[in-house]
Amino acid sequence: MAADDARLEGACAGPPLKVLTLRHPGGATPILIGPGALAAAAERLGPWLAGRTAFVVTTPRVLALHGERLAWVGERAARRVTLEVPEGEAAKTPAEAGALWRAMLDAGGRRDSRVIAFGGGSAGDLAGFAAGCFLRGVEVVQAPTTLLAQVDASIGGKTGVDLPAGKNAVGLFHHPAAVVADTAVLATLPRRELAAGLVEVVKMALVLDPELFARVEAGLDALLAADPEALAPVVAAAAAAKAAVVERDPAETSGERRVLNLGHTLGHALEAALGYRGLRHGEAVAYGLLFALRIARVRGLDPAVAARVRALLARLDLPALPADAAGLGPDALLGFVRRDKKAGEGGVAWVLPAALGRFEITREIGEDEVRRELTAFLADPWG
Amino acid sequence: MAADDARLEGACAGPPLKVLTLRHPGGATPILIGPGALAAAAERLGPWLAGRTAFVVTTPRVLALHGERLAWVGERAARRVTLEVPEGEAAKTPAEAGALWRAMLDAGGRRDSRVIAFGGGSAGDLAGFAAGCFLRGVEVVQAPTTLLAQVDASIGGKTGVDLPAGKNAVGLFHHPAAVVADTAVLATLPRRELAAGLVEVVKMALVLDPELFARVEAGLDALLAADPEALAPVVAAAAAAKAAVVERDPAETSGERRVLNLGHTLGHALEAALGYRGLRHGEAVAYGLLFALRIARVRGLDPAVAARVRALLARLDLPALPADAAGLGPDALLGFVRRDKKAGEGGVAWVLPAALGRFEITREIGEDEVRRELTAFLADPWG
Repeated sequence: MAADDARLEGACAGPPLKVLTLRHPGGATPILIGPGALAAAAERLGPWLAGRTAFVVTTPRVLALHGERLAWVGERAARRVTLEVPEGEAAKTPAEAGALWRAMLDAGGRRDSRVIAFGGGSAGDLAGFAAGCFLRGVEVVQAPTTLLAQVDASIGGKTGVDLPAGKNAVGLFHHPAAVVADTAVLATLPRRELAAGLVEVVKMALVLDPELFARVEAGLDALLAADPEALAPVVAAAAAAKAAVVERDPAETSGERRVLNLGHTLGHALEAALGYRGLRHGEAVAYGLLFALRIARVRGLDPAVAARVRALLARLDLPALPADAAGLGPDALLGFVRRDKKAGEGGVAWVLPAALGRFEITREIGEDEVRRELTAFLADPWG
Repeated sequence: MAADDARLEGACAGPPLKVLTLRHPGGATPILIGPGALAAAAERLGPWLAGRTAFVVTTPRVLALHGERLAWVGERAARRVTLEVPEGEAAKTPAEAGALWRAMLDAGGRRDSRVIAFGGGSAGDLAGFAAGCFLRGVEVVQAPTTLLAQVDASIGGKTGVDLPAGKNAVGLFHHPAAVVADTAVLATLPRRELAAGLVEVVKMALVLDPELFARVEAGLDALLAADPEALAPVVAAAAAAKAAVVERDPAETSGERRVLNLGHTLGHALEAALGYRGLRHGEAVAYGLLFALRIARVRGLDPAVAARVRALLARLDLPALPADAAGLGPDALLGFVRRDKKAGEGGVAWVLPAALGRFEITREIGEDEVRRELTAFLADPWG
């Protein structure tokens, strides 16, 4: 992965953008990060759009708040078609994908048409999936508008939609032609959404980048206040950490990419058990992280590190786990853990922090131990 | 592409199988061809299935006629789940894909589960697409049971389903782990189905393999009678021709793969104009071939070659074009041609025979010329 600070053509004002490059088997994805990245992308993406139909897949809210930042798409492309999708996880269904495919075909979409995914992680996952399968694949640019999407969902080529019985159960790897993460758009995010995004930053920092971990600890108040000067370097560092992992394991085959699943095995189970209501993805991952800390402690994680992570997560003001939710028993959660998408016939692979900047992945944790720890965790998640 | 005659382990009886290898960016796909290939595949696919869940996606008819040929799957895999899909093009819908995904997830499918597509081209396209997107991709073996699927659809990694406004409008490239083309199963095919499959053979032979063209001319009666000794070498040669093209252009990007589109630009338009009823795919391609001959003749194709191809196609007893079909006017067909999936913003690329064993691809044929030739073609397709 290559990184450099660059003042792009057409980006004469404002602070310089960070430009990373993620190399993958299908080529290389430039990742532009910083305030003003969307405006700066006009020059870079001009040739990519010239003479083509551009489908901008977005949500009504993002369009209203930030639509003008992509006003140049209509000028650069032969034709711009804006396709609105629902906010949040509601976008990630096969039916929504089907609606996009029909709309793209009816609007004259071709193999050389382009897709720009402009929204949060859900819009990006849906639009990426739709692009990946439309006429057997058209190119997509991810323009993530939430912190979570900027540091995680938009990077690495994963796309997909949900089934009733499984999140992201349908999808494919479809690396974007570029990622444009404009940190200026984060200013309109609710604090709760910023906090949820910071959970993924903490996850990656904990096991991949101790310096970033310290930076988040020191700057958390400014980050939660959406201070652009605080956000830009944190987004860039988290995106770089994720991109480096993806480069080593682009299709999640070698196992190296599994580290990103830290906190997600139980996180996904919590989301599923709650019917994808009540907790945001990042919030569920935070509880998954707390659970991973608990198991890791038994396996020798320094209690001081665990305490430091818990303290940082505590400052995010996460909503409490719904104490009376029917699905939140240990056995119900275990059922969802067993169905984890990343489970093989060999069982569930748990990602655990081993120290600040270190992790282990193990299939050696028996269901009895998981059930026991789950019972204790549900009684006292922060314990 | 590598080819050798091989007597596989476990295939002690019967004539030797042909084994081709198609190399592609994701690895290599062995292609087993010949009578008894399904039985012979048990040894080869044993390790691929061991300890895993195997989903056999098939149609009721194929299961009834040839299900016993895959009886070994249940013994080699940890678990076999048979999923029935409709016969023919009715299988190729997003809704059928959705039903497969839900069934696979509900049956405990995992990332290391396996899919075996056992049926004609439609079942293979659907099952390949479902496998390619299930949990972001599980491996599939194509076990084609029609001539068309054995020489064409199963080879090259194309998968997909249809939208109301476009055939194969949704799909992806997902190369199979193996192709098992058992020519013994072709004995139960109706003559019309064999003839439709032979059209694709003629298409490839015409521009890629003059020797195969002569072999089909000489052996057509035996081929239409499903004589296994006649079919096996023809299937092997046609599959080899297709595989060689796919190897040079695995994702249809360099343009070399476009040669396979010979007869398909108008063929697809005819199918769409008729609402995918009345003509089989191969029959529509035959008319597309006749139309390509007509345009090629204007551009200098030797009339003797054109006459030879027409004479061969005439022996297939194709159903006549429905003379009174509402959608079969030149303008309606032109509308569908313009929407051809392979059209770029630069227009429709026509594949034309230039001689026996040679072709040209051109975007230089204007709509006026196409309309004029279409009018003449519809009045006398064989002229």
